[in-house]
Amino acid sequence: MLSTTPRTTLGREKHRGSTDRTDLYEVLDSGLICHLGVVRDGHPMVIPTGYGRIGDTLYLHGSTGAKSLRAGGGAEVCVTVTHVDGLVLARSIFNHSVNYRSAMIYGTARLVTDEDERLAGLRALTEQLAPGQWDYARLPNRKELAATSVLALSLEEASVKIRRGAPNDEPEDYSLQVWAGVLPLVTMWGAPETDPVLPEGIDVPIHIRERQ
Amino acid sequence: MLSTTPRTTLGREKHRGSTDRTDLYEVLDSGLICHLGVVRDGHPMVIPTGYGRIGDTLYLHGSTGAKSLRAGGGAEVCVTVTHVDGLVLARSIFNHSVNYRSAMIYGTARLVTDEDERLAGLRALTEQLAPGQWDYARLPNRKELAATSVLALSLEEASVKIRRGAPNDEPEDYSLQVWAGVLPLVTMWGAPETDPVLPEGIDVPIHIRERQ
Repeated sequence: MLSTTPRTTLGREKHRGSTDRTDLYEVLDSGLICHLGVVRDGHPMVIPTGYGRIGDTLYLHGSTGAKSLRAGGGAEVCVTVTHVDGLVLARSIFNHSVNYRSAMIYGTARLVTDEDERLAGLRALTEQLAPGQWDYARLPNRKELAATSVLALSLEEASVKIRRGAPNDEPEDYSLQVWAGVLPLVTMWGAPETDPVLPEGIDVPIHIRERQ
Repeated sequence: MLSTTPRTTLGREKHRGSTDRTDLYEVLDSGLICHLGVVRDGHPMVIPTGYGRIGDTLYLHGSTGAKSLRAGGGAEVCVTVTHVDGLVLARSIFNHSVNYRSAMIYGTARLVTDEDERLAGLRALTEQLAPGQWDYARLPNRKELAATSVLALSLEEASVKIRRGAPNDEPEDYSLQVWAGVLPLVTMWGAPETDPVLPEGIDVPIHIRERQ
């Protein structure tokens, strides 16, 4: 079960809320990037960035010099992951909507200092985007690790919203001669584009070919 | 040209910044949703929501009862629109990246009260997601308009970041026997799914069929 706090209790469209923790995992695990919200000098700032999950901890990373993570370490953050699954084309403009799955996580980001946890977090971040690459590419060296901040965020305070299915129109609109339905949005991987300077004879590895 | 303020001057990866206003328009006009950042009770909050653009104004909307827009009207917001175009699979984990186009807009959201501007904003919001629907579906009635807040945000303070192309690896890594390149992410519309309760004889309109 997901926790209920004032922030995660939906004020509107409660029927779209999920309190199932597996829904939270599903939304996070099938995403590529999140939008990280921080408050800097009193102003909101929303940064697209990668993430990874291990159990009930979300990992974020950045350069040790990045403005957004300086603000984020030890500070309140909101991490949002959103999938757009389709357009809901209703009989009325007012009931137009989007089929989506989204997760919002609130909490205080903790700067990870333990080297084992830092590596585990970076591995989770890499594997979220590109499964198989951690065991395939060159691992970070000491200098690269020193240049990288890893932040941990508990999934304790989270909410999930999901909208699926056909439009919900006003009762009187169902007799209109207006087409209604869903236009699905499909996301897929294209054919790998080899780096032009790659020497000949190095094939696309199977874990990348298999994603298509 | 885009303005330069402390917030829109990139601290890192300056080479990815664009100061071309047409890049800003392109990123915004090809998006479906944005992530709206607000500060509520001192905490950041990031909400996925629709938007529309008219000239140098971005329009947002929501229920008059929504928590996020109550915080947003007259308050500082940050709106971020992100496109993920592909994964950058480098020879080293450290140089893994994402090909993306993103725009961040900072400013104070203005609650729109003029009825003509409200309608124009709602039209832009609808057409951003579903071009052609404003002239096809039933327009908002007085009750629906009363239940809808429209916010305007100037595009004056905005930044754009774009990453394209092959990995940038460390010089010494180019001799590794590791495949490197880009895995493109492709987004497309699927076949329209007609509402199961739609009466027979109403075809999918051409402006929806044409999107595929």
